[in-house]
Amino acid sequence: MLGKFQIRTDLALEAKEICEEMAAPRLRRSAASSDIWKKNGADTHDMDTGIRGVRVKEDVDEEREIYTTTVTIETENGAKAMGKPVGTYITIEAPNMSSPDEDYHREISQELAKHLNHLMDGHKDSVLVVGLGNREVTPDALGPDVVNNLRITRHMIKEYGRMPSGMETSGEISAIVPGVMAQTGMETLEIIRGVVEETKPGIVVVIDALAARSTKRLNRTIQVTDTGINPGSGVGNHRDAINEESLGIPVIAVGVPTVVDAATIVNDTMEELVAQMDQSDSMKKLGGTLGTLDQAEKHEMIHHLISPHLNTMFVTPKDIDETVKYLSFTISEALNMTFAGN
Amino acid sequence: MLGKFQIRTDLALEAKEICEEMAAPRLRRSAASSDIWKKNGADTHDMDTGIRGVRVKEDVDEEREIYTTTVTIETENGAKAMGKPVGTYITIEAPNMSSPDEDYHREISQELAKHLNHLMDGHKDSVLVVGLGNREVTPDALGPDVVNNLRITRHMIKEYGRMPSGMETSGEISAIVPGVMAQTGMETLEIIRGVVEETKPGIVVVIDALAARSTKRLNRTIQVTDTGINPGSGVGNHRDAINEESLGIPVIAVGVPTVVDAATIVNDTMEELVAQMDQSDSMKKLGGTLGTLDQAEKHEMIHHLISPHLNTMFVTPKDIDETVKYLSFTISEALNMTFAGN
Amino acid sequence: MLGKFQIRTDLALEAKEICEEMAAPRLRRSAASSDIWKKNGADTHDMDTGIRGVRVKEDVDEEREIYTTTVTIETENGAKAMGKPVGTYITIEAPNMSSPDEDYHREISQELAKHLNHLMDGHKDSVLVVGLGNREVTPDALGPDVVNNLRITRHMIKEYGRMPSGMETSGEISAIVPGVMAQTGMETLEIIRGVVEETKPGIVVVIDALAARSTKRLNRTIQVTDTGINPGSGVGNHRDAINEESLGIPVIAVGVPTVVDAATIVNDTMEELVAQMDQSDSMKKLGGTLGTLDQAEKHEMIHHLISPHLNTMFVTPKDIDETVKYLSFTISEALNMTFAGN
Amino acid sequence: MLGKFQIRTDLALEAKEICEEMAAPRLRRSAASSDIWKKNGADTHDMDTGIRGVRVKEDVDEEREIYTTTVTIETENGAKAMGKPVGTYITIEAPNMSSPDEDYHREISQELAKHLNHLMDGHKDSVLVVGLGNREVTPDALGPDVVNNLRITRHMIKEYGRMPSGMETSGEISAIVPGVMAQTGMETLEIIRGVVEETKPGIVVVIDALAARSTKRLNRTIQVTDTGINPGSGVGNHRDAINEESLGIPVIAVGVPTVVDAATIVNDTMEELVAQMDQSDSMKKLGGTLGTLDQAEKHEMIHHLISPHLNTMFVTPKDIDETVKYLSFTISEALNMTFAGN
Repeated sequence: MLGKFQIRTDLALEAKEICEEMAAPRLRRSAASSDIWKKNGADTHDMDTGIRGVRVKEDVDEEREIYTTTVTIETENGAKAMGKPVGTYITIEAPNMSSPDEDYHREISQELAKHLNHLMDGHKDSVLVVGLGNREVTPDALGPDVVNNLRITRHMIKEYGRMPSGMETSGEISAIVPGVMAQTGMETLEIIRGVVEETKPGIVVVIDALAARSTKRLNRTIQVTDTGINPGSGVGNHRDAINEESLGIPVIAVGVPTVVDAATIVNDTMEELVAQMDQSDSMKKLGGTLGTLDQAEKHEMIHHLISPHLNTMFVTPKDIDETVKYLSFTISEALNMTFAGN
Repeated sequence: MLGKFQIRTDLALEAKEICEEMAAPRLRRSAASSDIWKKNGADTHDMDTGIRGVRVKEDVDEEREIYTTTVTIETENGAKAMGKPVGTYITIEAPNMSSPDEDYHREISQELAKHLNHLMDGHKDSVLVVGLGNREVTPDALGPDVVNNLRITRHMIKEYGRMPSGMETSGEISAIVPGVMAQTGMETLEIIRGVVEETKPGIVVVIDALAARSTKRLNRTIQVTDTGINPGSGVGNHRDAINEESLGIPVIAVGVPTVVDAATIVNDTMEELVAQMDQSDSMKKLGGTLGTLDQAEKHEMIHHLISPHLNTMFVTPKDIDETVKYLSFTISEALNMTFAGN
Repeated sequence: MLGKFQIRTDLALEAKEICEEMAAPRLRRSAASSDIWKKNGADTHDMDTGIRGVRVKEDVDEEREIYTTTVTIETENGAKAMGKPVGTYITIEAPNMSSPDEDYHREISQELAKHLNHLMDGHKDSVLVVGLGNREVTPDALGPDVVNNLRITRHMIKEYGRMPSGMETSGEISAIVPGVMAQTGMETLEIIRGVVEETKPGIVVVIDALAARSTKRLNRTIQVTDTGINPGSGVGNHRDAINEESLGIPVIAVGVPTVVDAATIVNDTMEELVAQMDQSDSMKKLGGTLGTLDQAEKHEMIHHLISPHLNTMFVTPKDIDETVKYLSFTISEALNMTFAGN
Repeated sequence: MLGKFQIRTDLALEAKEICEEMAAPRLRRSAASSDIWKKNGADTHDMDTGIRGVRVKEDVDEEREIYTTTVTIETENGAKAMGKPVGTYITIEAPNMSSPDEDYHREISQELAKHLNHLMDGHKDSVLVVGLGNREVTPDALGPDVVNNLRITRHMIKEYGRMPSGMETSGEISAIVPGVMAQTGMETLEIIRGVVEETKPGIVVVIDALAARSTKRLNRTIQVTDTGINPGSGVGNHRDAINEESLGIPVIAVGVPTVVDAATIVNDTMEELVAQMDQSDSMKKLGGTLGTLDQAEKHEMIHHLISPHLNTMFVTPKDIDETVKYLSFTISEALNMTFAGN
């Protein structure tokens, strides 16, 4: 499904960087966006992407160390350029996201709730939350864990109405953890579509663990988009798109990269190899040849070299259990905030 | 939903005993059926229930200590008399069902598979298994645990066909663990109906933990019925019937009583009180009055007396974790046997 | 181990009530302490127990609905009268303890931390927290769940010292979940004693799920004592005392009643039966005989009647998974507060 | 702790290969041992390692596809040459170890039990099994999962003796899951040593998930050794050796490689790069320089290049949940077999 040399990417932020790289090839990729932010100070500003139909807005909150990027793909032209559907892509980056600081997590929850509120505007009366992923595999348990801590209200409102339940301002919240195909024998989309048709929510919010393109983003970014989930994302094999087109109602996707593809690790190292060739004495003798390969050629070479086993593997930090616990609390808290005030 | 004096019961075997009691009130209820079996030796025989439209067949395997009772309710008249829908109710009773003897469990699996094969005859091409219950509450995790150990094949057969998967004789097996209403905000029926409509299985097999009417049956009986699940059963609040009428396809239910209602415990003790009144000296002084109450009056009295809290409580053995583990293996093994040979 | 007619009890509050009953038999037992509190308004006052060597102090915070009772057994005479070792027994009662209100839980955590700070005074440099119970059985998982959310610091302070870890004021916190005897084949005490001897903490804090004597206290009281854990408590069979005598260092025990013995349920109902005999017409005919039994005779009768199975069973609410989740967060938060500020 | 260029390895089989490479550099490393076996047919034979003090025996069971290698390091000279302590290292290799074929798993269990019986000869009276690893991280949960399915007998034999328990031939089996340092704040060794001193078992059996040096061995080899566990092994940071020297009683270690270090992945790819340089046209232009590096130089280069993040990461297959489930059953079954017949 992915083109020969196309890099699989789940993060709009990376899409933005790719776009930057494409638009301004003079920018070294290693100039990470957070470095740019740091120089700018606390600020909100629009950036010129150089691509028509694509707007990028950055919010820098240095004090709280929360960096938010909003990529808006407005036209089919922009969609083609970015390799992503038309829609809004919000990336919240917080370097200490997986640390156990409760107050810091509340601030991230508030930032996330603010964007969810905006994206879900007018659709919070009746929400189905879907926790994608395999609860038996630690980094893929993020979605199920988030659902575990949600305040579920639909059955109570259905039975008692909003008043006696003390839920005057709450929407009807329902949730499901569909499991992965190896456990169910069904496409996730089949299960969600069945439940949507039967229970008629106004909007679906899908939570998923993602595969990052770089270890630098692991467990420190939350991505929100109103375009749903599209093929090739995440650890599990979610085959079909889960979006407004396939479900008939709006779909918000919330994702956190908790793993990296094994191939990405190799790729990162090769890039480092090339980058260092001119700087390190011991590397210089390699320079002549590897340095002449362009990015596409390097990826082709890597895909030739890595064992086919690697495509069925993922890379994740050793303390992923703690990280997923903190991240799932942060996201479920944000959802509870969003749903409580209608 | 249940009538004022009607005792909630999930077990056809108990229905049979009630029926026996009704038909032959001279039989003391405490003469447990397994005692009868023991006297009879290894044997299969039909019994006269005394109720038209209801047949009871007993299979006694003394060597393996497996006792199977099949109650067939054939007519609406029989259904009315038994308080259960028309259909087949099979109860497999094995006193050591929760012991860790692997070979013994395999024998129970084989017995269960035999009956499942019979009940599912002609419908094994495409099966959806539903693991009801709350996986976070130990005695209610039976259904989810059974699904955990099933051989799921639907996605592989859909992708590769039966031949290359080495599944020549296997049906397309899919499975779902829908969760309970407090977790999902949805009726279990809504989720199952949605999935059934979307994936079109030929039959549904529902696995559930049940509430027994007597502690004597706890964790030592498996009930199978082709009438599905009907209101008021089990620990969770499965509100609506899950049966052929509500789903449009046949529904087999497999259940094991893993809990007892708190009210049942009190009831059992009161019955024992009455039973001992004439035998124990220290009890005699109570005899005059309690002895004059009939069963209905006694239950009315108990329901008056027990705290309203009790209706939200269940009783279960302290080693329920081990028991549910063994039972779930036994049932998933039986299902795997049933599905493998089509 | 328990005397013939002695009621098993895990709660000092209940001990207090028993003591009240013994000291002042004119007080009806059904006048629950919280009713007394309600009449008194927000207040702190000492009560005369009528037993030498036993002091009782009550703190009523009506606004926050938190009621704290401190029983201090000061002398061996008091210990004999109460049937509990000399020491401090604090019971925090909060009617909404198992509701999902996060702010309310924080207030309970603060109340608990206040008492822990007092009881652990001078021993917070190096603490071993022990999460007793079986993590596979929902109501018994409280101890393991509390440990799951603790901030563990011993290994970091050992490696980096207090300064670089940003733990200037924190003690060295270590923790263990020893499991239950059916899982380990060992007495819990053996495991704890081995770990204490090897790692030399200054104090042990034991967290455990308890069996309440009445359903009314289930999941709404936290008990703290500096006398450790003594035989016969809780769901698991913790055979030997875990206290300063057996471990050689102070032992604080924190417990929450999450289950009731099945026998207690029957007992409660029988008491209700006796209590109503004069009030209900339909009960009157029983009055003559049952009413003449004293409490000891009634308990003897019940113990005769209940099935021996019942002694291996427990009673717990159907939503125990949610309750244990909230309670464990509340307690681990209190411990984290206590340990953070040394 | 590991020397500069030394490759971290947990598998004696790999040690053997390294030894082969060292002893006979004309053997290409990519000639995997199983290829050798396949050529030989079903057979048992001793091999000349070329190193004094090291014997290697191979058992090939082609029909069952189980390949067992026993490396015996007999002298300190051999230990120095192999970089492993004196002792026996058994590697059971079975290509389909993570497939769901129950009969195949039983055969592996029997093979493993055979070797355990031999290694534990005379020490089965009283065994402490230790399930190392973090149960919250899927590939590291192997040890805890194995312990979950053991038949624990010590407490029953202690209480009732061997006769009434029907355990005439069984040893006293106890078990513990100590957790990892981030959860306990303690070295695993401290916990085990404390428990050993308190309960006095005759031998310790440690189960652990390992890090393989090559993806080719992942989840298809079981290693058993009587030298215990030595620094640098596995996913968790088990800092100190767990062996007869540190515990005072014999220690058997059973391990399965369930993860690969992220650095290993990169290394494998680089090796493949070098290997293909002469074969692939597109690679040839790289040959001149990379090809001149020896293995040590290559590893130094890779360690320079990979991100420091990578050292805190592991690589594991996406279906690791299923794999760990099957493997843990296989090992616990082998242990139960070993312990049942004393």
